[in-house]
Amino acid sequence: MKTQAKQAEQAKKPTSISNLGRHILAEFYNCNSNVLNNLELIETVMADAATECGATVVEKKFHMFSPYGVSGVVIISESHLAIHTWPEYGYAAVDLFTCGDECDPLVAYEYLKEKLSSNNAIYTELRRGMLNPQNDEVMVSPFQIKTHID
Amino acid sequence: MKTQAKQAEQAKKPTSISNLGRHILAEFYNCNSNVLNNLELIETVMADAATECGATVVEKKFHMFSPYGVSGVVIISESHLAIHTWPEYGYAAVDLFTCGDECDPLVAYEYLKEKLSSNNAIYTELRRGMLNPQNDEVMVSPFQIKTHID
Repeated sequence: MKTQAKQAEQAKKPTSISNLGRHILAEFYNCNSNVLNNLELIETVMADAATECGATVVEKKFHMFSPYGVSGVVIISESHLAIHTWPEYGYAAVDLFTCGDECDPLVAYEYLKEKLSSNNAIYTELRRGMLNPQNDEVMVSPFQIKTHID
Repeated sequence: MKTQAKQAEQAKKPTSISNLGRHILAEFYNCNSNVLNNLELIETVMADAATECGATVVEKKFHMFSPYGVSGVVIISESHLAIHTWPEYGYAAVDLFTCGDECDPLVAYEYLKEKLSSNNAIYTELRRGMLNPQNDEVMVSPFQIKTHID
């Protein structure tokens, strides 16, 4: 079994696809508003999404807004997951940022889509910190971007 | 003076530009590696970036990687700021997500560019949760996107 330090070390190494970070920006529409307004449930679902996709939870912090809405972040050894919900619009904006090959943010995306009962979802995937294969330096260029509509 | 609850309430309301959230994805290249590897300094600079841009800090959590690199999140009443640094590449990936009209994430971007001594920086601005002016519902469509290279 790997130590957390070792996992963290591995997580910061470039992946085989030559980028330092993989960032999924997920838009969840037409969700269950009761779920979006339940602080405890959102916290549990976000932490579970992290472990489901193979990440290691370091810390989590969630906040209930008045009159409604939840914001929160799960810091993982492989970067972070963040959520902001607007129950009044049935909408949640989610960020799934991971480093390394050991976890797959798309697994977290699919898990959350189901748990938030989202009837329409869109994700945009970004590769951040693209590495130049010629010299193994980070390239100064906007990231690769791919949008997927469910 | 406004209470935090009132600020939070305001922060969740749609802005005049008809979107729920404004998200700046900042890529800072050729930074000072000593700064990027200093946990305490990164934590201070990120919290200061939040207050500089008019946000209210709710909580912050930072983590030092082995052998190098810092990850951390500042939860603000208006959403969150996140950073992941790779001192070995002189690179930092930063997210500045704000709601409402009371703070400007671009001020935080400029502040961080200076404090990290970044010689090259790129930001991409996303509008998340676009509102349909016809019915005030969130539109199911990929967000507006704009990239700026410094």
